[in-house]
Amino acid sequence: MEKIKEIIDRIKPLDEKAMAEAKTRQDNLTKPQGSLGQLESLSIQVAGIKGNSRPRIVHKVIFTLAGDHGITQEGVSAYPSEVTPQMVYNFLRGGAGINVLARHVGARVVVADLGVATDLERHPDLKIKKVAMGTKNMARGPAMTRKEAVRSIEAGMELVEEELAGGIDILGTGDMGIGNTTPSSAITAVITGADVASVTGRGTGLGEEELKRKVAVIEKAIGVNRPDPKDGIDVLSKVGGFEIGGIAGIILAGAGHGIPVVIDGFISGAAALIAASLSPQVKSYLIAAHQSVERGHQIILRHLGLKPLLNLDLRLGEGTGAALGIGLTEAALKILDEMATFAEAGVSEKA
Amino acid sequence: MEKIKEIIDRIKPLDEKAMAEAKTRQDNLTKPQGSLGQLESLSIQVAGIKGNSRPRIVHKVIFTLAGDHGITQEGVSAYPSEVTPQMVYNFLRGGAGINVLARHVGARVVVADLGVATDLERHPDLKIKKVAMGTKNMARGPAMTRKEAVRSIEAGMELVEEELAGGIDILGTGDMGIGNTTPSSAITAVITGADVASVTGRGTGLGEEELKRKVAVIEKAIGVNRPDPKDGIDVLSKVGGFEIGGIAGIILAGAGHGIPVVIDGFISGAAALIAASLSPQVKSYLIAAHQSVERGHQIILRHLGLKPLLNLDLRLGEGTGAALGIGLTEAALKILDEMATFAEAGVSEKA
Repeated sequence: MEKIKEIIDRIKPLDEKAMAEAKTRQDNLTKPQGSLGQLESLSIQVAGIKGNSRPRIVHKVIFTLAGDHGITQEGVSAYPSEVTPQMVYNFLRGGAGINVLARHVGARVVVADLGVATDLERHPDLKIKKVAMGTKNMARGPAMTRKEAVRSIEAGMELVEEELAGGIDILGTGDMGIGNTTPSSAITAVITGADVASVTGRGTGLGEEELKRKVAVIEKAIGVNRPDPKDGIDVLSKVGGFEIGGIAGIILAGAGHGIPVVIDGFISGAAALIAASLSPQVKSYLIAAHQSVERGHQIILRHLGLKPLLNLDLRLGEGTGAALGIGLTEAALKILDEMATFAEAGVSEKA
Repeated sequence: MEKIKEIIDRIKPLDEKAMAEAKTRQDNLTKPQGSLGQLESLSIQVAGIKGNSRPRIVHKVIFTLAGDHGITQEGVSAYPSEVTPQMVYNFLRGGAGINVLARHVGARVVVADLGVATDLERHPDLKIKKVAMGTKNMARGPAMTRKEAVRSIEAGMELVEEELAGGIDILGTGDMGIGNTTPSSAITAVITGADVASVTGRGTGLGEEELKRKVAVIEKAIGVNRPDPKDGIDVLSKVGGFEIGGIAGIILAGAGHGIPVVIDGFISGAAALIAASLSPQVKSYLIAAHQSVERGHQIILRHLGLKPLLNLDLRLGEGTGAALGIGLTEAALKILDEMATFAEAGVSEKA
């Protein structure tokens, strides 16, 4: 917990001076003021995060964290748990959605095992940060111990710190874990206070009856465990997941090291709720890549005060939305840095 | 008009076989079916346009067309008309928003004068297709003759054909023309049948009173000219603009040559209404880059049956939204082509 407190202490408010300078520059670029909408506000936010009125991004990293979930015993997912390790190998071979989209935006992908329920084969590109062989079935008791919850967050922080040497100008978060929309819905219900049914969706493809069952399972898990909504570690330990804790750690470490954090969809959003409950200041470092199909995601974004960049009916996870969000953020920063001003271009201003 | 008829005759329905193959491939890639939402449907659309179930795009071209508008005499724009040529020079020097975003997505920008009200200095990268020195004031009579309307469409077609040698796998449309939201609103009202007030926005930044004046001016222009909503050329000639006609020509030529056409915002949308009124088949070749702040744009997209990729409160024009849309389309096609299938990756399918 010491390590988590240290990083939280490092999270500073955004640099107001850099933001004001970036705003002035945006207003002097050869376009009607505000005409690039959210790209302008995004560039100003990143200026504030980086303390630089014309920041550029070169090194882009997407962290894709894997973990398994004991709750799958209750039949809450359309896919079997064996898919979690299979997809990890797919990531390592470069054949998954996240690999394609990360290549498209020039990001490197860091794949990590936070708690896959099988021993994965060693691979030079696989980071092993396994907290345990999957969580326990939260419908019958806590998903993990408090110590394991802390450890999962610290493991995420370590992943960021180990990558700093290679450069991280912006980072994206991603997840892989069969069954992980279930703990994400539970976390969302507990932290935002929303009804379970209103934050529970079909995941990778449940039918109507299965969805009802999933809602009942989540309600049971919350009833059995009674997580304290004010204590993010308690929520994570009782109804969370290892990759979710890891992503919360990545978010905290990103903010602590002054790096803009592009969060992916629903699972990353639930992790952001945990991170923000530990340090509300973290919210100003977050960029919401997209609005997921998972219905609870909208409630998460509202709770965090974030407006998504994209709304493409995505629900894959892995960091795929975050990759596209990184591409748009880079575009926004290039606008801020590369466009000519009215004075430079000899263009008349508004009458 | 002969040339326009010829290109319209070339516009084929999308290739159903290529689309079915692309759909089957999407369904076998290592992700839950449909989990990449609009990226999946976009990739299938492009497969149909190109008659290839795994199309790739290498050569990307954005056409940014400039023209002036006699209607500015009525005080409908926040900027003076001299900004049109000034911005053309800014495009040619690479300092405008479109230059930055086109570089970001690896597209080349073709800048063309369709009807700027001044003689522009020659420049190796500037295409001169000037139909006239700006349109006439449409509040007092037709913006242009029918012959000029036809010529503007043909000029846009020529621009595409002249670029074919350099390769065009996808194209984007863009505009520059002080005052051009006014004819775009007029076109939208006439073709969709919507109220003028419901399709008229603030352009580059009008106040409340100026907006009312703009609505009145557009109503007057429609009343004076009585364009025939069923005749796209008549609408263009009476309440249109040269760059709008040029963009309509680009859209028709793109479709005629089997090229996906990414349309930018409101002005490109009005041009698409003209193009679709000449050839409804053109709609299946269109990709709507974004939802503009201009209120009439939503009505255009609904009329054309298009769902925008982005909603970032953009209202700059130039093709800036189209550039971002091209980047997303490329991402969608890479997903279709590069991702591993379940069989290739040894990943278990849905139970």
